[in-house]
Amino acid sequence: MTKHAVTVLGLGLMGQALAGALLRAGHTTTVWNRSPGKADALPGAVVAGSVAEAVAASPVVIVCVTGSAAVREVLDAAGDLDGRVVVNLSSGASREARETAARHGRYLDGAIMAAPSDIGTPASAIVYSGNRAAFDEHEHLLRDLGAATFLGDDPGLAALHETAVLGLMYGILNGFLHSAALLRAAGVPAESFVPFAGAGIETVAAWLPGYARQIDEGRYPPVDATLDTHLAAIDQVVQESVAAGVDSGPPAFARELARRAVAAGHGGDSYVSVIEQFQAPDKERS
Amino acid sequence: MTKHAVTVLGLGLMGQALAGALLRAGHTTTVWNRSPGKADALPGAVVAGSVAEAVAASPVVIVCVTGSAAVREVLDAAGDLDGRVVVNLSSGASREARETAARHGRYLDGAIMAAPSDIGTPASAIVYSGNRAAFDEHEHLLRDLGAATFLGDDPGLAALHETAVLGLMYGILNGFLHSAALLRAAGVPAESFVPFAGAGIETVAAWLPGYARQIDEGRYPPVDATLDTHLAAIDQVVQESVAAGVDSGPPAFARELARRAVAAGHGGDSYVSVIEQFQAPDKERS
Repeated sequence: MTKHAVTVLGLGLMGQALAGALLRAGHTTTVWNRSPGKADALPGAVVAGSVAEAVAASPVVIVCVTGSAAVREVLDAAGDLDGRVVVNLSSGASREARETAARHGRYLDGAIMAAPSDIGTPASAIVYSGNRAAFDEHEHLLRDLGAATFLGDDPGLAALHETAVLGLMYGILNGFLHSAALLRAAGVPAESFVPFAGAGIETVAAWLPGYARQIDEGRYPPVDATLDTHLAAIDQVVQESVAAGVDSGPPAFARELARRAVAAGHGGDSYVSVIEQFQAPDKERS
Repeated sequence: MTKHAVTVLGLGLMGQALAGALLRAGHTTTVWNRSPGKADALPGAVVAGSVAEAVAASPVVIVCVTGSAAVREVLDAAGDLDGRVVVNLSSGASREARETAARHGRYLDGAIMAAPSDIGTPASAIVYSGNRAAFDEHEHLLRDLGAATFLGDDPGLAALHETAVLGLMYGILNGFLHSAALLRAAGVPAESFVPFAGAGIETVAAWLPGYARQIDEGRYPPVDATLDTHLAAIDQVVQESVAAGVDSGPPAFARELARRAVAAGHGGDSYVSVIEQFQAPDKERS
């Protein structure tokens, strides 16, 4: 194991977890936080008195603060970043990552797909995008934080992947809560629904590789069922929701998409054909 | 194994699969279908010339037709059902199951959570609700179709469970298609997203037992994150969707629910607290 010098800017829960993992891996770790005292739980860390001092201490500077305004503020205060690699692990939009990358040549944007308690363990996964040479040079260091995947040169890719996973996760959570509300209206406890939910999740998860292939090929032959059949099933969910006095928002949206896809001639195709309706430019909502 | 006499009304793909499994299990199986010729692939089946003749042949009558009008029509044509157990495996609404049960005393409503090709194998699961004595008496026969679970005396429970699983499945599918559309706008193929989707699904699936417990207890202490934190993440999904020209329907709905829950004082609670917003009676959509 090679020892390196690395700086962590921002010692919230996640920043502390990152610095802790780097210290445990034996790296000389310099830390800075806007408010003092956050380094108390990090024995061995070098506490810098200013952002500029912290940045001057190491060739790799990890930023983990809250909000894009804080990212800008910290990097503006950093002074001369020449030669330094900036690894921004703060949450943010893909557009912001691209803007920051345009200002700092050796820039990596990262998205942490793990809880603070997982950092530095095999359960931690972090995706990176931006400057490939910087990733290659410091990959060994980044691996001490968790599994490290480089997604591509577009600095926005890490944020986009994080967003895509989040969107899927909320789709599942709201699907589960909607179903639990539906069953609760008939007096069924949520715990008794969990095994059925698990089986449904497993079924759909097994479909996804085939769905992905159809998306990439742009051809939608029916597999599990035709879209016409799916539309009838979705309508059943809407009707039961209305009858039970449960908000039918998610299935009503699904029905609207499926109806548009059927109207576009996809009734005999697979459910995957619905993806084209997600991209109808007149259907954006903000 | 005991041989029984059983009748199957309706020989669509699923009806044929049911009759085939019963024949393979050695039961004397009488079949009827509105249009003739559908029993050709069922050697050994007794083909009845009318619904009444088919019903007279067996103490257990399985109905598997398409749509509630067809269920009513078939049962009206059955004549005297006295003493017969009717097992309706046609898809339908919980309200229709309750109405049919009110007309036929020994009635079981079932929902098939399997594809026709799984019927009669361990991969097949069928849930039943309605007349418990009828289920207990014929459970051994029903198990020849797949795992059989009795949900309760309310005849609508089977349809409700099917609807709940369907709602969750479409939540996942639309979450996946929305995310794939978002990534495609940045040139990322769907196949490369599948492993990330799988990890996200696994993470959320592991949360569900804890979520169910909170739903049933009506208390929402924060676990994975507070609702305030979730709301910020959902907002990120909405913003990225709008920026990419992708329909933000699902995350915008999630944000609306989360905002209402925060306004109701749940910002420091778990995401589970959102379930109460699904039941706001002024938010029904049809």
